[in-house]
Amino acid sequence: MTATHFDREIHPKHSYSPIRQDGLEVPETEIQLDDSPTGPNEPFRIYRTRGPQCEPTEGLPALRAEWIAERGDVASYAGRARNLADDGRSAQKRGAASMEWQGEKRAPLKAVEGKRVTQMHYARQGIITKEMEFVALREHCDPEFVRSEIARGRAILPNNVNHPESEPMIIGRKFLTKINANIGNSAVTSSIEEEVNKLRWATRWGADTVMDLSTGDDIHTTREWILRNSPVPIGTVPIYQALEKVGGIAEDLTWEIFRDTVIEQCEQGVDYMTVHAGVRLPFIPLTTKRVTGIVSRGGSIMAGWCLAHHKESFLYENYDELCEIFAAYDVAFSLGDGLRPGSLADANDTAQFAELKTIGELTKRAWDFDVQVMVEGPGHVPLNMIQDNNELEQKWAHDAPFYTLGPLVTDIAPGYDHITSAIGAAHIAMGGTAMLCYVTPKEHLGLPNRDDVKTGVITYKLAAHAADVAKGHPGARAWDDAMSKARFEFRWHDQFALSLDPDTAQAYHDETLPAEPAKTAHFCSMCGPKFCSMRISQDIRDEFGDKLESQLGMPAFPPTVAEDVQTVEEARAGMAQKSQEFKDLGSKVYLRDEETHAAH
Amino acid sequence: MTATHFDREIHPKHSYSPIRQDGLEVPETEIQLDDSPTGPNEPFRIYRTRGPQCEPTEGLPALRAEWIAERGDVASYAGRARNLADDGRSAQKRGAASMEWQGEKRAPLKAVEGKRVTQMHYARQGIITKEMEFVALREHCDPEFVRSEIARGRAILPNNVNHPESEPMIIGRKFLTKINANIGNSAVTSSIEEEVNKLRWATRWGADTVMDLSTGDDIHTTREWILRNSPVPIGTVPIYQALEKVGGIAEDLTWEIFRDTVIEQCEQGVDYMTVHAGVRLPFIPLTTKRVTGIVSRGGSIMAGWCLAHHKESFLYENYDELCEIFAAYDVAFSLGDGLRPGSLADANDTAQFAELKTIGELTKRAWDFDVQVMVEGPGHVPLNMIQDNNELEQKWAHDAPFYTLGPLVTDIAPGYDHITSAIGAAHIAMGGTAMLCYVTPKEHLGLPNRDDVKTGVITYKLAAHAADVAKGHPGARAWDDAMSKARFEFRWHDQFALSLDPDTAQAYHDETLPAEPAKTAHFCSMCGPKFCSMRISQDIRDEFGDKLESQLGMPAFPPTVAEDVQTVEEARAGMAQKSQEFKDLGSKVYLRDEETHAAH
Repeated sequence: MTATHFDREIHPKHSYSPIRQDGLEVPETEIQLDDSPTGPNEPFRIYRTRGPQCEPTEGLPALRAEWIAERGDVASYAGRARNLADDGRSAQKRGAASMEWQGEKRAPLKAVEGKRVTQMHYARQGIITKEMEFVALREHCDPEFVRSEIARGRAILPNNVNHPESEPMIIGRKFLTKINANIGNSAVTSSIEEEVNKLRWATRWGADTVMDLSTGDDIHTTREWILRNSPVPIGTVPIYQALEKVGGIAEDLTWEIFRDTVIEQCEQGVDYMTVHAGVRLPFIPLTTKRVTGIVSRGGSIMAGWCLAHHKESFLYENYDELCEIFAAYDVAFSLGDGLRPGSLADANDTAQFAELKTIGELTKRAWDFDVQVMVEGPGHVPLNMIQDNNELEQKWAHDAPFYTLGPLVTDIAPGYDHITSAIGAAHIAMGGTAMLCYVTPKEHLGLPNRDDVKTGVITYKLAAHAADVAKGHPGARAWDDAMSKARFEFRWHDQFALSLDPDTAQAYHDETLPAEPAKTAHFCSMCGPKFCSMRISQDIRDEFGDKLESQLGMPAFPPTVAEDVQTVEEARAGMAQKSQEFKDLGSKVYLRDEETHAAH
Repeated sequence: MTATHFDREIHPKHSYSPIRQDGLEVPETEIQLDDSPTGPNEPFRIYRTRGPQCEPTEGLPALRAEWIAERGDVASYAGRARNLADDGRSAQKRGAASMEWQGEKRAPLKAVEGKRVTQMHYARQGIITKEMEFVALREHCDPEFVRSEIARGRAILPNNVNHPESEPMIIGRKFLTKINANIGNSAVTSSIEEEVNKLRWATRWGADTVMDLSTGDDIHTTREWILRNSPVPIGTVPIYQALEKVGGIAEDLTWEIFRDTVIEQCEQGVDYMTVHAGVRLPFIPLTTKRVTGIVSRGGSIMAGWCLAHHKESFLYENYDELCEIFAAYDVAFSLGDGLRPGSLADANDTAQFAELKTIGELTKRAWDFDVQVMVEGPGHVPLNMIQDNNELEQKWAHDAPFYTLGPLVTDIAPGYDHITSAIGAAHIAMGGTAMLCYVTPKEHLGLPNRDDVKTGVITYKLAAHAADVAKGHPGARAWDDAMSKARFEFRWHDQFALSLDPDTAQAYHDETLPAEPAKTAHFCSMCGPKFCSMRISQDIRDEFGDKLESQLGMPAFPPTVAEDVQTVEEARAGMAQKSQEFKDLGSKVYLRDEETHAAH
């Protein structure tokens, strides 16, 4: 692995500018802006996920190690021995993984006997941890609000005690909508180095968490490299690795192999794990009349096992033991929707909702152990059926954060499923989904490469932000306004700097008007230099200044026009009221949003 | 211009397969499908916009010429003389446009004295024209329904008598959602040949109408080439050309120059024209406090004119004369939203809605002349404020078809505005918008090239289709179901053939698994050959077959599970009922949709 080339900021106007308070250093990016004609602009600050940079071989500093130690409720222990089987048959043959982790190996930590070390446990005790303080600074809200949201289970702060490198972040619908990027090798392709590069690439562009979905060689060691280099929480689907350990034969899986795999991953530091414990034996026949059956890989593994043995799922049967393990490391459940629809035709069917109902039951059971939970959602859902998913999830899963894959709103556009799913993602996040799992252009077709990862991340950032704006999240629209002001004033460099993807914005601009003067010119390629609509708007502003419309000395409004304006203003007021009534009467999501914003 | 390379279908499994009925030949594409394990699949048929192919120099056959002539209400006349000023100063200097139209020149037609030749006029007389029959076959509905929708103004069938090459299509919210692609040269770049290629390229991928927004050299002649080669209605913004005629100085515009330009374009065959007659003098000061002022080019031209002269808009003042002209050629109004918001900050403000209210008034006035009307809409609108636009447009503009640009739901993603706007487009179309104007990745940054045009068209096709599915448009979801069935059965070639963009789908697939056997293999690159979730689903299906769940001889449902399934089914029923109540009580859009679907 060579020295990283990710060191530079994504734009020369960006810089690392942390919030420093109470001994914490919370990362943010500051964007320098050029002056407006009317005066200078304050720098604009945005959320930052990329974390500190390091040699991949060294790994990131253990930011949270002291905070964890100070609480005095964990102890280190020997942990599982190095087991080449964790890395698959190639590693066993070779006697090593293809590129063993070269950095420091820490002994794993776990809770001392009788203790639970989850953020939910602390929150319920009324304790505001350093992690919660960090999150409060990052989200610009009150630490007590962070604590209370975690305590009631409406938000999670995923951070395994064995992943002290991660910068605390929160997933919950009262906070900024988050996005997840999937990486991971497969039997078909890809290397450890590529996966670490994808991790850094995804977080550089704004991934809030990353899931390692590896199913190929060197699963254990790839994950080690990823965790030691990840400033964001890492999620996995442990059944994938368990399946590799039994040679890909679902029926050979056992609870013992699964549990051992979970402990292996707990010791490494995985922050949340997808567990398909809601796929119960009696639900499987509910899928037979579907157009696309079971499309979740984990769901079909468990369905395969249940069928082969004609037995209830070992995940469901041993769920309490799993909760005890998770509580000892602070691993969060991501309760997997193994029966999610794989096509519009199968959306919102009985199989899907029977599982969701069960997931709700499992959520409560995890909470009995103070284990944090989020709930996974679909998938493929027509636009008009999306909001039902939010409502049932909130009702049945008791407001646990919802984490959806898209959903895709049509099946007919392979190659464009980042878009078909971003439409659904923005819509479902507006309705209360807390985290969106990205979909790349390669969905249904192949494995994403570096460009696909970036496209997926940027697409989901924009969908998440659109939802934050629509929800009226405090401060969200300021970013749009800063961009629009720069656009109106032809501050091209600021427009690039304020973009989610400055490189692409500038490259597209340069294709038509490459010369540097075009970046300070007061026109663009749409209208050309001769005529510019923005300039006319400026003329209007110059002419009318800040005068009120009524003082303009314009010819008196013709009666129909005065009436137009009046009718318009009444209609706007009327809509605002109607909207309020809607909130008051029916829209639970928004009603709760309002309550919270009033509260913090 | 060389022989076209657009002759081949977009996939080898596609073929031209028209509906032939009552002497009409209505284009459709038939897609051959491979067999399922359970038996053969019927070919799948889709809407086809690309039209017949020809040498660009020859132009398309005049499909509608006879139908127009048979009605006996038009006559040919000399028309305006060839005027090099129509093509700008380069043409005047040169003594010719850079590439004069080489095909047949027909004398223009117009209504004989005292006649109106619009489809709305015929519809109101109870006449079902050939154009309406054609549309009914194309949309798979009753011709009388087409007539009644046009008569009441809720749909338009844009087809100038001087553009007999076009295949009739309809824009209205009871029909398939349509999309428009913008092309056109600018002062900065592009040639006649390029524009004709873009037209053919856009219709190949599914553009339902094309707007020629040229502002550079050879405007008249470029448009001639486009019209003679266009199987879809062509729209323009005549004020752009009028502005060129006065050297780009807005204040030098006059009603006479504008009217002459409109007649020039009527004679050529433009099917609909954007006219910003709703930008009235008193509304202009309403924009001064906006973040982005007036961003519509046409709107700012008119605002510039009004300001310079301190006079009411000549478009508004002379609107009735314009209606008379349009009625004589069957040109439809696209009433331009010159005061549309250019940023989230400016969405749904008084300026925007004052104009919309005025547009409603202008709609009624056009209908007095039997002139067809659609209404243009925003722009940039937060996701939660979109539906208000549909509702006010339907109320104030009396259900005239709504035609929106996106809207973009965030301002922060230049380079990805096809996506930010597709999110808004799908949402607004679900709420009743009839046609969506595409946005390409170059929006705000530069002029779209060929790839951008394709990306814009495909993105908008998927958004329009997602909306059709969400609206429950009869038959819309069949396409998704055909794709999903092919996906479940690993019919890879069928998946490509059923894609909006087969080339991209196949290219992405081949990147990971290039060999031909991989296209018949029963696995994909996501899970690899060893384990396949689709295969497990098939095993489940094989095991349970078509048995009802209750007859499966499964272990009795544990009580909580039986309860889960029961609760789930009650919840689903409850949601359906709630959804119905919502329709009954408040959702006018859907309520009307339901009425209509019941009616035809």
